[in-house]
Amino acid sequence: MSVKPSLSKGTRDFFPLDVARRKYILGIIEDAFKKYGFQPIETPAVENLSTLTGKYGNEGEKLLFHIRSNKNIREENPQINEALTGLWDGMLPDKSDRGLRYDLTVPMARFVSMYWDKLPMPFKRYQIQPVWRGDRPQKGRYQEFYQCDADMVGSTSLFNELELIHLYSEVFSNLGFKEFTIKINNRKILTALASVLGIESQLASLLMAMDKIDKIGLLGFKTEAAKYGIPESVIDTILPLLDPTTPTDALIQQLDTLFESSEEGKLGLSELTYLLNNARTNHLAFDLSLARGLDYYTGTIFEVVTHEVQMGSLGGGGRYDNLTEVFGLKNMSGVGISFGAERILDCLVELNRFPENLTGSDTKVLIVTFDDASFQFGMEVLYQLRDAGIASELFPEVAKMKKQMKYADQKQIPFVAIIGETELNAQSVSLKNMTDGNQSLVNVNQLIQTLHG
Amino acid sequence: MSVKPSLSKGTRDFFPLDVARRKYILGIIEDAFKKYGFQPIETPAVENLSTLTGKYGNEGEKLLFHIRSNKNIREENPQINEALTGLWDGMLPDKSDRGLRYDLTVPMARFVSMYWDKLPMPFKRYQIQPVWRGDRPQKGRYQEFYQCDADMVGSTSLFNELELIHLYSEVFSNLGFKEFTIKINNRKILTALASVLGIESQLASLLMAMDKIDKIGLLGFKTEAAKYGIPESVIDTILPLLDPTTPTDALIQQLDTLFESSEEGKLGLSELTYLLNNARTNHLAFDLSLARGLDYYTGTIFEVVTHEVQMGSLGGGGRYDNLTEVFGLKNMSGVGISFGAERILDCLVELNRFPENLTGSDTKVLIVTFDDASFQFGMEVLYQLRDAGIASELFPEVAKMKKQMKYADQKQIPFVAIIGETELNAQSVSLKNMTDGNQSLVNVNQLIQTLHG
Repeated sequence: MSVKPSLSKGTRDFFPLDVARRKYILGIIEDAFKKYGFQPIETPAVENLSTLTGKYGNEGEKLLFHIRSNKNIREENPQINEALTGLWDGMLPDKSDRGLRYDLTVPMARFVSMYWDKLPMPFKRYQIQPVWRGDRPQKGRYQEFYQCDADMVGSTSLFNELELIHLYSEVFSNLGFKEFTIKINNRKILTALASVLGIESQLASLLMAMDKIDKIGLLGFKTEAAKYGIPESVIDTILPLLDPTTPTDALIQQLDTLFESSEEGKLGLSELTYLLNNARTNHLAFDLSLARGLDYYTGTIFEVVTHEVQMGSLGGGGRYDNLTEVFGLKNMSGVGISFGAERILDCLVELNRFPENLTGSDTKVLIVTFDDASFQFGMEVLYQLRDAGIASELFPEVAKMKKQMKYADQKQIPFVAIIGETELNAQSVSLKNMTDGNQSLVNVNQLIQTLHG
Repeated sequence: MSVKPSLSKGTRDFFPLDVARRKYILGIIEDAFKKYGFQPIETPAVENLSTLTGKYGNEGEKLLFHIRSNKNIREENPQINEALTGLWDGMLPDKSDRGLRYDLTVPMARFVSMYWDKLPMPFKRYQIQPVWRGDRPQKGRYQEFYQCDADMVGSTSLFNELELIHLYSEVFSNLGFKEFTIKINNRKILTALASVLGIESQLASLLMAMDKIDKIGLLGFKTEAAKYGIPESVIDTILPLLDPTTPTDALIQQLDTLFESSEEGKLGLSELTYLLNNARTNHLAFDLSLARGLDYYTGTIFEVVTHEVQMGSLGGGGRYDNLTEVFGLKNMSGVGISFGAERILDCLVELNRFPENLTGSDTKVLIVTFDDASFQFGMEVLYQLRDAGIASELFPEVAKMKKQMKYADQKQIPFVAIIGETELNAQSVSLKNMTDGNQSLVNVNQLIQTLHG
């Protein structure tokens, strides 16, 4: 009557090494968050559907997980039970009015809308929690995954954008990335572009086609844009602007000319140039094709990519002016970024850039014994090691040497302290270095000294 | 058309101070886990219902959260749609075969059952993640809360129990508790007791009545047990055993006599005395009335209580021999403990035992400026502070002094560096200590030195 144990589709178990690696990455990010004055908050996984729905577009909406508690609605509702008789036995109608959070942005907007008068303003929060999406599971795409966001809400100052650029730069450097680019663009520039070209109504199509340039190139863009019905003359005007070989200064000059009569375009350009001129990093680059589908961006847009490995964007974000309005709180502009912690992990694995001692086990030494007497002495040694603050273990059973060494090996424990008859008589241990195989007889004080070293 | 922002019932938002406090507690616990050789794992929040059901008893089962993704089943199933017409418009029948985890024990059992041949054995894992229960929300009881567990699986050695006692003792001492008791008992003793008294079939009732002694006293127990139909003669035999003033040695002696013909009783007593004799802590105590409702315990049972504040148990656990059997993996005995992180937090708040600098903000200094020129210099100062590793902020806007000081105050930032005209001319800042109000003009090097100190 046993059940075959299985994982729910699209979800993963994390082994000790996985957890250690994620903690390493999140630790570096979190340290930077704190250094820049961001404060942690956490919101519940379960939110009212009224909070979640209407925020993620048609496609996103379909991916929401609904939840309900396990009450027998059949029993409670004879009418329902009757209607369902024979049709879906054991399936209960859903009375769900709650769901699992889809991202951290909407819960943050709810949070700020509820508590803004109690929060320091501008409010700088970070949040690292899992989110859930009912996506079709596929390689690298899961239904449950961590998000890691930092936002500053309640200030329109461009200095906030600058801070986020510096934060990105510092974090990716600290993570050991050598080549990475923080791409920026500005929603106002994109809107103005569509406007001066007379294709306001086709902005979404334009953005979609531009978003693919990375993959399909400029020629591909031309075909794609034409397919969306964007006039050829317009495409011809845009094409040179999207040429990645155009120097940034020249591009800005061209846009400046184009925006002669567009206040919005000028404003977007001035925001952009402020950031380009004031950022203290070599990793910043203007990318006119950067759009990042999200409808709620109203100013600067960010995205981070690396060229060291083949991988999608490692982070993104932008300025939004109206995020809390749906919760009744107006004039609360914010700007935020997100770190793609899972992709960053995949990169660091591929680049082999994790610290060597990151194994998922912190145990420095395993004490190995062979009979009750040596086990008894092993306990004494263990307690002295622990009192000295050294992470240590005593194999909990009198077992064969091979079994105990396999345990040390699987946990990648760097030292083994063997207690046989000789060692017991000398009230010492044979300390074996598992890396180089060297072994020497040491007393407990020497043992502590060696392991502290 | 705005939505009133609200929390889902039974859930909470965590403000920066809340998060910092929980991290402080979990950090102390986690450090001890690592020191004792436990490794972290994480399992998904979403599990197949086949994993979750049949494990938590009738009452627990009702509290399971079911989930489903938001597909329009009406559209997909015309038959269903028809049957529901007019009845529950907008409510979709539930095709859920998944749920949210109810605890960390069952997911751990699933994990071990799936991967036991890849894991170091015995496997010592810890896990700190939220769980969900559809309980009626009330003070101190939530539908979503953290659990924090450590288990060792795959070894029957009593030394494992000893390790867990030491772990409890070390953690509660490190958390600053002065008075706490690690109560232990043994399921075998309880079973044998019922057996030698001839009330095997009433064991559950006996345990329930004993479980209430803390609240209702010995006389209350007598009434309660009689109500459950336990014979008076039996109650009279048990009563002196439950008297808390009986010294442990005498109690063990009495049980030893009682168990003259019970192998199980003798075994339970020998396990108990091994722990009492070998534990290196003053905080251990035998409590014959300790039962902890869980059916799966088969040996030692633990519970931690404090007398410093009025609070339920701060942790508990025990030995289980058959936890993975339901997943087809036999002979995998384990023993584990849990820390009631939320109650521990409530205790430390009440006892005011959190470190003073634990505020939820790590910012050491806020730079305050008054115009574009001082803001520009403020940026330079900020970057030098950050380069020196000092967590610091520049108020992102040119704003009134009062507004900026309020911000520093709300975030409990200990220093403010003010840049007015005088300071700008001197390329210095007026450094104000927010605790004592002292203020002095310092240059950037002095500023860094002071803040590092």
